[in-house]
Amino acid sequence: MRVLVPYDARDPKTRLSPVFDAAERAALARRMLEDVLEVLERAGHDPTVLATAEVDALDVESVVDERPLSEAVNRQLERDGPLAVVMADLPLLTVETAERLFDREGDVVIAPGLGGGTNALVVRHPSFRVDYHGVSYRDHVAHATELGATVSTVYSFRLAVDVDDPDDLVEVLLHGENATTEWLRNAGASLEETETRTRLSRSTDSR
Amino acid sequence: MRVLVPYDARDPKTRLSPVFDAAERAALARRMLEDVLEVLERAGHDPTVLATAEVDALDVESVVDERPLSEAVNRQLERDGPLAVVMADLPLLTVETAERLFDREGDVVIAPGLGGGTNALVVRHPSFRVDYHGVSYRDHVAHATELGATVSTVYSFRLAVDVDDPDDLVEVLLHGENATTEWLRNAGASLEETETRTRLSRSTDSR
Repeated sequence: MRVLVPYDARDPKTRLSPVFDAAERAALARRMLEDVLEVLERAGHDPTVLATAEVDALDVESVVDERPLSEAVNRQLERDGPLAVVMADLPLLTVETAERLFDREGDVVIAPGLGGGTNALVVRHPSFRVDYHGVSYRDHVAHATELGATVSTVYSFRLAVDVDDPDDLVEVLLHGENATTEWLRNAGASLEETETRTRLSRSTDSR
Repeated sequence: MRVLVPYDARDPKTRLSPVFDAAERAALARRMLEDVLEVLERAGHDPTVLATAEVDALDVESVVDERPLSEAVNRQLERDGPLAVVMADLPLLTVETAERLFDREGDVVIAPGLGGGTNALVVRHPSFRVDYHGVSYRDHVAHATELGATVSTVYSFRLAVDVDDPDDLVEVLLHGENATTEWLRNAGASLEETETRTRLSRSTDSR
């Protein structure tokens, strides 16, 4: 099965701006992409990066499509399904978890992100199309059900944690063991305990 | 193995105050407790509620200990281990996930919550003591390692989502199928899409 990894090659991870500048965000996004690609390859897949612009020095095949994410993915679904779509910002992903995703039966297999997003998707039904806007997990389940497709949800901690906000990086620091986590530590990121929760902190001398 | 379910019978879930008043928070906490107890019983366990005050009309055994959580749990560990501790605010817990926790080998088995908490714990080592303050997942791993105990982490979406803030209830509305989710819907809770994330919303006519 083809595995697409969408990647924003232009201005990735803007919501991390309070902690990292544009160059750092680009470096972090690239590190996360490489971690995800490596895991997918070790799990026996041959992933294709679906990028918004040319990506330098990639070891895997890439397709450039400047359109919004959902349109770009749907174009690939129309052309050549079945297809899996795994987000590039899942630095806790392991081979075991990737296998759990791909081994799951169902016309449509969805791994929800925290907050109702769709972090990974296996589409084996020819008419299924994506819409990543809003509470996409719920919308994807509804769409698949309308099509009469069988739907299966993969509940996974490692697939649920995507990186949008600084707080998401708390999980990566706590549980990650790959290049992304190392990058974060080298960038001076650490955990800070507040009254109610653990937040990301950054030592200023690393900036 | 004894299974403790700590429960704040006094003023539970204060961080939900922006959405629910004190009586509602008490009702919601009780509903979550009952969901967790039911799952543990269906998984073949005989849970004991470790409460901060008397709890009315419970179908299971309870122990009242007014001291802070860590002290109360440690007293039970000193008295009568091995012991499991499963938090009362895990409304996504299923029998399958509970079995995954208890089947996992290790002197200390930890299921982390989002943000570095410890949502469930199986303690088979006689010297292990808990400290729920701060980034307890990290601290519990370190403490067990110092003791020479084998440590195993259970990464589970369903065990990771505990209910502290209103946003945590987004996951319960999206993925829950038990009495807690029904209670939330009846209370007028629903999902609201914002620019960056999905939040909990509440219709005012349900208040």
